[in-house]
Amino acid sequence: MRRRLRLGMIGGGQGAFIGAVHRIASRIDDQYELVAGVFSSNPDVSKNSAEELRIDPNRHYKNYEEMAEMESLREDRIDVVAIVTPNHLHHDPAVCFLNKGINVICDKPLTLNLNEAHSLVEVVEKSGALFALTHNYTGYSMVRQAREMIKNNELGPIRLVQAEYAQDWLTTNLETNHKSDGYKQASWRTDPKRSGVGGCIGDIGTHAFNLISFITELELKELSADLTSFVPGRELDDNAQVMLRFKSGAKGSIWSSQVATGNENGLTIRVYGEKGGISWNQENPNYLKYSSLKKPSVILSRSGPDIHAISKDASRIPAGHPEGYLEGFANIYNDFANALWEKIEKGKVVSSYIYPDVYDGLKGIKFIAKTVESSTSNCIWVKF
Amino acid sequence: MRRRLRLGMIGGGQGAFIGAVHRIASRIDDQYELVAGVFSSNPDVSKNSAEELRIDPNRHYKNYEEMAEMESLREDRIDVVAIVTPNHLHHDPAVCFLNKGINVICDKPLTLNLNEAHSLVEVVEKSGALFALTHNYTGYSMVRQAREMIKNNELGPIRLVQAEYAQDWLTTNLETNHKSDGYKQASWRTDPKRSGVGGCIGDIGTHAFNLISFITELELKELSADLTSFVPGRELDDNAQVMLRFKSGAKGSIWSSQVATGNENGLTIRVYGEKGGISWNQENPNYLKYSSLKKPSVILSRSGPDIHAISKDASRIPAGHPEGYLEGFANIYNDFANALWEKIEKGKVVSSYIYPDVYDGLKGIKFIAKTVESSTSNCIWVKF
Amino acid sequence: MRRRLRLGMIGGGQGAFIGAVHRIASRIDDQYELVAGVFSSNPDVSKNSAEELRIDPNRHYKNYEEMAEMESLREDRIDVVAIVTPNHLHHDPAVCFLNKGINVICDKPLTLNLNEAHSLVEVVEKSGALFALTHNYTGYSMVRQAREMIKNNELGPIRLVQAEYAQDWLTTNLETNHKSDGYKQASWRTDPKRSGVGGCIGDIGTHAFNLISFITELELKELSADLTSFVPGRELDDNAQVMLRFKSGAKGSIWSSQVATGNENGLTIRVYGEKGGISWNQENPNYLKYSSLKKPSVILSRSGPDIHAISKDASRIPAGHPEGYLEGFANIYNDFANALWEKIEKGKVVSSYIYPDVYDGLKGIKFIAKTVESSTSNCIWVKF
Amino acid sequence: MRRRLRLGMIGGGQGAFIGAVHRIASRIDDQYELVAGVFSSNPDVSKNSAEELRIDPNRHYKNYEEMAEMESLREDRIDVVAIVTPNHLHHDPAVCFLNKGINVICDKPLTLNLNEAHSLVEVVEKSGALFALTHNYTGYSMVRQAREMIKNNELGPIRLVQAEYAQDWLTTNLETNHKSDGYKQASWRTDPKRSGVGGCIGDIGTHAFNLISFITELELKELSADLTSFVPGRELDDNAQVMLRFKSGAKGSIWSSQVATGNENGLTIRVYGEKGGISWNQENPNYLKYSSLKKPSVILSRSGPDIHAISKDASRIPAGHPEGYLEGFANIYNDFANALWEKIEKGKVVSSYIYPDVYDGLKGIKFIAKTVESSTSNCIWVKF
Repeated sequence: MRRRLRLGMIGGGQGAFIGAVHRIASRIDDQYELVAGVFSSNPDVSKNSAEELRIDPNRHYKNYEEMAEMESLREDRIDVVAIVTPNHLHHDPAVCFLNKGINVICDKPLTLNLNEAHSLVEVVEKSGALFALTHNYTGYSMVRQAREMIKNNELGPIRLVQAEYAQDWLTTNLETNHKSDGYKQASWRTDPKRSGVGGCIGDIGTHAFNLISFITELELKELSADLTSFVPGRELDDNAQVMLRFKSGAKGSIWSSQVATGNENGLTIRVYGEKGGISWNQENPNYLKYSSLKKPSVILSRSGPDIHAISKDASRIPAGHPEGYLEGFANIYNDFANALWEKIEKGKVVSSYIYPDVYDGLKGIKFIAKTVESSTSNCIWVKF
Repeated sequence: MRRRLRLGMIGGGQGAFIGAVHRIASRIDDQYELVAGVFSSNPDVSKNSAEELRIDPNRHYKNYEEMAEMESLREDRIDVVAIVTPNHLHHDPAVCFLNKGINVICDKPLTLNLNEAHSLVEVVEKSGALFALTHNYTGYSMVRQAREMIKNNELGPIRLVQAEYAQDWLTTNLETNHKSDGYKQASWRTDPKRSGVGGCIGDIGTHAFNLISFITELELKELSADLTSFVPGRELDDNAQVMLRFKSGAKGSIWSSQVATGNENGLTIRVYGEKGGISWNQENPNYLKYSSLKKPSVILSRSGPDIHAISKDASRIPAGHPEGYLEGFANIYNDFANALWEKIEKGKVVSSYIYPDVYDGLKGIKFIAKTVESSTSNCIWVKF
Repeated sequence: MRRRLRLGMIGGGQGAFIGAVHRIASRIDDQYELVAGVFSSNPDVSKNSAEELRIDPNRHYKNYEEMAEMESLREDRIDVVAIVTPNHLHHDPAVCFLNKGINVICDKPLTLNLNEAHSLVEVVEKSGALFALTHNYTGYSMVRQAREMIKNNELGPIRLVQAEYAQDWLTTNLETNHKSDGYKQASWRTDPKRSGVGGCIGDIGTHAFNLISFITELELKELSADLTSFVPGRELDDNAQVMLRFKSGAKGSIWSSQVATGNENGLTIRVYGEKGGISWNQENPNYLKYSSLKKPSVILSRSGPDIHAISKDASRIPAGHPEGYLEGFANIYNDFANALWEKIEKGKVVSSYIYPDVYDGLKGIKFIAKTVESSTSNCIWVKF
Repeated sequence: MRRRLRLGMIGGGQGAFIGAVHRIASRIDDQYELVAGVFSSNPDVSKNSAEELRIDPNRHYKNYEEMAEMESLREDRIDVVAIVTPNHLHHDPAVCFLNKGINVICDKPLTLNLNEAHSLVEVVEKSGALFALTHNYTGYSMVRQAREMIKNNELGPIRLVQAEYAQDWLTTNLETNHKSDGYKQASWRTDPKRSGVGGCIGDIGTHAFNLISFITELELKELSADLTSFVPGRELDDNAQVMLRFKSGAKGSIWSSQVATGNENGLTIRVYGEKGGISWNQENPNYLKYSSLKKPSVILSRSGPDIHAISKDASRIPAGHPEGYLEGFANIYNDFANALWEKIEKGKVVSSYIYPDVYDGLKGIKFIAKTVESSTSNCIWVKF
């Protein structure tokens, strides 16, 4: 039996949301153990977090540069580092670890801007290290079922994709109220210095775009976007309407919003082809509605009848026993572990694994840049 | 007790869909009796239909001109005529009856094109007759509840409206197959000579637009539209993406499609304001989801608790006893009957009734024209 | 074309619920016209109701005896009378009209008690007249689809039936509060003199039992029932648990309640056979879930793909255009009209029609009696 | 920071279902590490499983007796053992470990029969060790919300509880077909020697009963049960109807079935009180419908607005990010870890923790025995 992969972490200390998610995801299938990290830019928070996480004090570092340096000198150095900081702190740590040959798991979006994204792609390519981006929604079993059905032409040539990602937590001006519950989360997400040029479009719109790409494998030709900041004083968009044209002739749209009261985490995708259609909703993720021409609609159930092997492989328990967000996230960690082991054992990766990578990340950053470009030119169509 | 209003009908003979709907709608609340008509351009079909409908043979006419002429000479002339023909046969019959002072109920969209629409508005204004357009979805009890909630500021100032109307019945090329089930319905709806410049956008997109206007009372400032004909050989659009900007600063979008497999009659509207949001779906029309900031979402039920009087008035039976499409349609007939009686009894109408009228119809035709204009100019923003 | 059938009505005046439902149901398909009636035991209410309903004053009667007498003397006598009074006023009027050879539509349950029910069966048989009981839920298109699927053995031999009918409107003691909204409806339904020995079990439990019989055609062998009056001071049951054993070896249960807060009109039936199962819910009546072994569940849609002809015949508009309670009710009226015309035109009825009849009514009354018998003997199994 | 608790496991080797679930549950919150075990009665399977689980070969044992003996001699002995074998192999291993003072997590139902259950209670009490039973559905966040709402009297005094647990995987005779997918799971569950006197009622009916007890804290007074074996040749019941009477006067029912085609894991509970009602369904577990008198129904969302602290504590991620079965299971492990630490650190447990314990297990075994007793006497009421 293989040992556990040694995992380091940058960010994700006490009070953070996504760091804890990464850690649970890394534990679910027991392929990783967290052994090193810098958990916050605040030294006390970082130290307390490290203790709480039972990190050997020798492997709790002052900053990521020290960590990359020191870990690279160890026999039992980390196999992979998870970078779970705000967007402006993705590129530099990633480059630093990649330059030491350490593999990287990075939270999305890839970087603060397009320049950084191109730079990071280059560094990844030169490094020979593996790089995974946690567009976690691709980890859901039924999302993989959808992708496989389309690969198998069960829907016929795709005509249309309707995606939406609606939330409501930024309906009011949380980012200016230091005492509000969501202040910490809201303040960096609405700050161009830490988030980049995209607000809602970067935080969640990219998830919707990534999901379209993952499920349909359509290539985007051009887009027209209308970004809005509804909340007074907000610098970045909190709502986006995007129209899409794909190279194949298919069309689509994305609506993403963080001011749509009553939507908690409403990521929905619908795909229509010449022979059939599917519909999937993240808030009820164990089911996929499938409709084919002149037949009644069918409710496919995770791990149930008529499910493709690739989807079953992303499921741990029988149909009717719901899996959720954390299990989907864990599938990304799991796929990446399999790729890492192939690299460790064979020196290179020749099999194909389905975790999102640095090119998916680049596409996401490009998507943000292009939507902003279109929106600032009154929704002109912008080539992708 | 008032007598029943005497109703005539143009179109709606055997094999038609919407004519039968109008007749049922007119009967549900017993305010009308059908007494005269021309039911088809095919004389045999018209005659057989008249017999089946128990029309006095003296009041079954050869054509609408004869009917308008002869009815206007009778003591017991029809109070109102329902025009339920394809789009290109709305304007002329309507003008003909209006010129005789006969009130009109007309199916949507109002006319074949914008010229006809302006002409019709003028004729209505001159005639002094009343004119109702059957944008029937405004008749649903919970649609009226939604409108009333927004009037009462229960959602706060409106920021965003997402509407969609998705069907799948034109996924294949029904209009070229004379033997297909849907041929009759498909052939005129995909023929510019009979439908006008809009296909899907005219047939159902206008319903979505009308519903937005009815529920929110927002005034449209400009739009950008991307119309597509996915089915090879089809002359008119079968899918439309439309982005909307309202005068108030609110934004919105409409997606309408007739090639979205798995959607039977999926008309959905979601409205988001500063304080709350609502969601309503025509296929499950007795409920309205209402969410206000920092509170759990509520399921309002037709005729149930916390329902406004105006919505209860549009309901016939207790909560939990579902009403549907026909009852909503009947509400339009009912509202119009009430207006007609005020006119009959008082000579003029001073109260406000909520049936859609010729101005709503004009807006719809303008909407079609503007979406086509935008779409043919690569989605340029077009002032409304 | 056939003329409209002439309909009379007993009960259903102003303030009543079910009378208005019958009248709408009779109008939807235009097979009836209401021409005579006694609408209330209160003469003023009856007279005002008659006027509102545009009844010829000569055909508004003092009581049902006068009406039966006078109508039977007319050339244009009523073809059928609808009896929509409380339970204790079903038997005598029905007998009175039947004895004049006038066909009857009667609201459920059939009579106040088992003696009356047997008597009524005898009178119907002797009279040669037709008799329909408005177990209206059998009129829903998808209920008929369910029945047809079971007839066609699509579920295999039936093992199990789970039915429930849950409401909440009697959660509090409405019947003692003259000013409460539901007082009129509640007071007679909770009064043994007017309702008989069953409260909730008679008012709605019989609907559930009838639906089981209609859909599955299973014959009941024995039952065990536990009836409860939860609301202090209430004389009749407001909740019932019933276990069922059928002659075929199948088993089942019925739960009916009028004190289950959050349930408006929650009639649900689920049937399981050796090869498949179905589930239908009255509050979302246009769909039927169908599951067969080792296949994903399918959502059958009213008038959509894979629907049996008998179900489509009970539908007026295309799939996705919801029909509801009133349309289901209208189907009973429609079926009965067809039977009446066969009788009128051919002297007797040889075809089979699917409206509920006096034998279904007798079974319902027996069901009430047997559940009460079982419950008062601590749920002993009672032969049916 | 506390170390991880050292966990041993009996059963759960390759091919088992619930063992893997326990292991994932133990990892999610990082309170445990699996260090020892006997994973199968088949030595090869056990050895291979141990390797796959990275168990030190010195701590992979031949049988549970050896394991209890050897572990109890180690300084770093296991803190707790998880027993995840079929029902007939719960009692003896549990007793063996308890006698060594080792705490136990045991799968449900507690034991093979009532004698064993009483014996086990006694041993637990004497041992001073802690004992948890994995009635995992009590771990769902929204189940705890339901319980807390009832504790807070938000529903008023409880009148009625309707619970059901429906599956379909035993619709056919899997247990006789060695090659069927579900053979391994089916064969012991339908074998009285390994499962005890209850089939479906023991496997899943006990979950429903436990959920009722957990949520409502009602005490059962008596029950009447009708157990059926629908599948020919099956020795144990595969369907159960149970009527319940509680000491408070409340009533209830349980339907559990493993032959209800279309039901994957349909555990649903509805509770009705004088002031309100709730409904929760395991297959969509992040939501709880709450209805109070004369108000529209509300959809409470896990970790969302109006959720009690005790429910939020059982949630790891924000509302709209679904959690599922594994997270619920992990909550039981988590609660038990907290109790174990109190015992380790303070020598005894004085706080109250909400994991199911040996007394809940005893109640479940009693429930099975009483339902079988009632059923074999034609559903006579049996005191609990």
